[in-house]
Amino acid sequence: MRNLALLTDLYQLTMGQGYFNEGSHERLAVFDLFFRPNKLITYSVAAGAEQALEYLENLHFDEDDLAYLRSLGTFTEDFLKYLSTLRFTGEAFGVREGEIVFPYEPIFTVRAPLLQAQLVETALLTIINHQTLIATKAAKICDAAGGGVMEFGLRRAQGADAGIYGARAAIIGGCEGTSNVYAGKRFSVPVSGTMAHSWIMNFPTEEEAFRAYAKSFPDGCLLLVDTYDTLKSGVPNAVKIFRELRAGGFEPKGIRLDSGDFAYLSKKARKMLDDAGFPNAAICASGDLDEYSIRSLKEQGAKIDLWGVGTKLITSSDLPALGGVYKLAAVYENGVEIPKIKLSDNTEKITNPSLKEVYRIYDRKTDKALADYIVRAGEHVDEGKPLELFHPVETWKRMTVTDFRARKLCEKLMENGRRISPSPSLREIAAYRKRESARFWEEYKRQDVPHIYKVDLSPALFALKREMMETLGKGV
Amino acid sequence: MRNLALLTDLYQLTMGQGYFNEGSHERLAVFDLFFRPNKLITYSVAAGAEQALEYLENLHFDEDDLAYLRSLGTFTEDFLKYLSTLRFTGEAFGVREGEIVFPYEPIFTVRAPLLQAQLVETALLTIINHQTLIATKAAKICDAAGGGVMEFGLRRAQGADAGIYGARAAIIGGCEGTSNVYAGKRFSVPVSGTMAHSWIMNFPTEEEAFRAYAKSFPDGCLLLVDTYDTLKSGVPNAVKIFRELRAGGFEPKGIRLDSGDFAYLSKKARKMLDDAGFPNAAICASGDLDEYSIRSLKEQGAKIDLWGVGTKLITSSDLPALGGVYKLAAVYENGVEIPKIKLSDNTEKITNPSLKEVYRIYDRKTDKALADYIVRAGEHVDEGKPLELFHPVETWKRMTVTDFRARKLCEKLMENGRRISPSPSLREIAAYRKRESARFWEEYKRQDVPHIYKVDLSPALFALKREMMETLGKGV
Repeated sequence: MRNLALLTDLYQLTMGQGYFNEGSHERLAVFDLFFRPNKLITYSVAAGAEQALEYLENLHFDEDDLAYLRSLGTFTEDFLKYLSTLRFTGEAFGVREGEIVFPYEPIFTVRAPLLQAQLVETALLTIINHQTLIATKAAKICDAAGGGVMEFGLRRAQGADAGIYGARAAIIGGCEGTSNVYAGKRFSVPVSGTMAHSWIMNFPTEEEAFRAYAKSFPDGCLLLVDTYDTLKSGVPNAVKIFRELRAGGFEPKGIRLDSGDFAYLSKKARKMLDDAGFPNAAICASGDLDEYSIRSLKEQGAKIDLWGVGTKLITSSDLPALGGVYKLAAVYENGVEIPKIKLSDNTEKITNPSLKEVYRIYDRKTDKALADYIVRAGEHVDEGKPLELFHPVETWKRMTVTDFRARKLCEKLMENGRRISPSPSLREIAAYRKRESARFWEEYKRQDVPHIYKVDLSPALFALKREMMETLGKGV
Repeated sequence: MRNLALLTDLYQLTMGQGYFNEGSHERLAVFDLFFRPNKLITYSVAAGAEQALEYLENLHFDEDDLAYLRSLGTFTEDFLKYLSTLRFTGEAFGVREGEIVFPYEPIFTVRAPLLQAQLVETALLTIINHQTLIATKAAKICDAAGGGVMEFGLRRAQGADAGIYGARAAIIGGCEGTSNVYAGKRFSVPVSGTMAHSWIMNFPTEEEAFRAYAKSFPDGCLLLVDTYDTLKSGVPNAVKIFRELRAGGFEPKGIRLDSGDFAYLSKKARKMLDDAGFPNAAICASGDLDEYSIRSLKEQGAKIDLWGVGTKLITSSDLPALGGVYKLAAVYENGVEIPKIKLSDNTEKITNPSLKEVYRIYDRKTDKALADYIVRAGEHVDEGKPLELFHPVETWKRMTVTDFRARKLCEKLMENGRRISPSPSLREIAAYRKRESARFWEEYKRQDVPHIYKVDLSPALFALKREMMETLGKGV
């Protein structure tokens, strides 16, 4: 495993030196990682906690890391000596990977000595922002396609990690496989892929190229049909080879379209394959797809069974970064919590103070999610009593729920710097996302004018926040 | 170094097995990596060749890679045995990192046995697409700012590599430093950063937070002034601490604005700092910046000396992927080149056949670039004779140049799978980009309605391409 201790912003270390000088570096602190609203995102799919925990468990400075820091001339020898034995010793709390999450709710929380908690901010954000972004985009694409989506984006990913962990996140979001062999090995997910145009170009004719492929892979014969002319050359040649295959006792997998008008071509190709006696040969489309084009193609009646989605998925092209942040929520003095708040002229940017828990409130009758409810840690949500929810800014918007089930979203993931429970497999995470996503009404998930899912605060948390806003707003 | 042999699309290996079965896997082949036009990009800054060469030199399959491939059930034992000793044994040609490049011209070319050349496609594209994308975005941002840009985007990068190699590419594009400590160590670039809002929030008052910081870093005191109220609290407190610093014999570095109206706040803050006797205290701005907002702020007279640019740089947010492709240009039979072409209904997508060279034609009087000129390998460009350039599609557009200098853009970088020359430092690469960028008229580089830089073909290359289009257009 790569040592990522230096995968941080310099100011984390500068502040670390400052806290060390002040003697406050081991003061216990709480930081929350959460997202702010974005008009392109109606819900997010949490991902990346596995790699975040790996990073925390592995955190240490090597000799050459320290030598580099020394060379900057900013840090004292005492501080560097302190760093040389530093390990992450704190707690981490977070939602399960694959959980459907919303703005403002903490999805990963660190409670650790201040210097450690501050140092790890950057890498935690890098890891969780990225995977959550891609899992979310994948979920939108897979929702549009209704299944059969493969992740094909590695060559357009922003570096190797973006491809590898992007493929992982895509599976969490609902993709059924990837072209990325590294990710396939690393995370045990199905890999797929057959041929590129260069294969066809390497033979004198398309027919010979198809025949050679069928000979090598009689069991997995999916032919790329758009190199010369899809309907005049590609599909007829594919049909010819499929007949030869069948004569030899094999059934073809299908064809892939990689250019042209997918709606028109897929309908024509479907008819040609059906008429030739290959109704089970699948049609795969790839090239410039995303949730918008897939939805549009389906509306036009395109006959596409498999979708190879590349660039727009692996980069989340219409929103290439999630604005995830990591904010101080509390410190402790003599074991007593001192809540912290970050003010802003922009009300949406004011943070929620103190250590918190998030409950998801489900309607018992429908088993659908009604709202998320953020409380101060230790507050009890009594399922036996009516629960009044109110909007955290427009407080006159109120709703009382009864006959509900309350589920705690965040679990403790790490104690004393060590994970306390085994990690689920990627397959389990993906299945969990699918199950939990079905507990949300489509109205909350749709892209256009979605109904906004409620994320409310308990009266106690709301009162604390208001009090701190009043005090600090005057104070400084 | 991580073994990235499996960082490839499955179809590269599937085709590899097919070529192996056909006995054509060791046939010499030429692939070109190049970009297609994009309306958001007027020019690109090539980057990533260093990591591409590292990858090629290190290419090998470990035992567990082979065990994984075996588990897929797609590959023969003979083929896996062949892969077990496979190394990259070919040649690579490419432009220097930092070179200004344009659509259609090969910026990285591989000539190697077919199986190898095909296998490495994906990783080469991942590496070069990413770094070229970010170097290009950085160049646009640095052009807008006219200097003083720092890369601050790690937390919003698409994974660790996107942050690390993105920082490298940002330096190539003109950034003067990064907040990313890992990248600072790995590539010897300046790192910078002072404090976050959490530092301020960890002290009872802003003034105490500033004083504590100044005490720890009297030599590098740059204070974040927007936690509570920039002009009423932040700047006055900063001035107070700057006076204390000066009384102690130190000069302050300056202040950082991270929210609010940068034009208004920077002008007000500049005046306050000047009036207080700190005309050399710099003003740094960070938050949601890119080339558009920087240009707008400068037009409004903002007094900003340093720009911390994050999300929009590290993700190239308005264009998060370059459509770089890697296309078969030739194979060899008995040592004779057989040019290859990829047709398309879209004329822009038709590739240029054969092994090629690219010349940049400079006007000797102005030392400015006039055009790029793609020739078949071995063609000579005679500086002593007038050179006629013509548009490769609209061939009636012609221009004759005299008194020119012709420079070969691509060099041989690798022979027999080994690099043949030492790598320049990142500092040298960045200096080269700056020097070469100055050889282009602004008209070619501006964002809005740029003059399109000419990339033309030699008559011999043009004739070959036309002939192949005619033949194949009829043939298949």
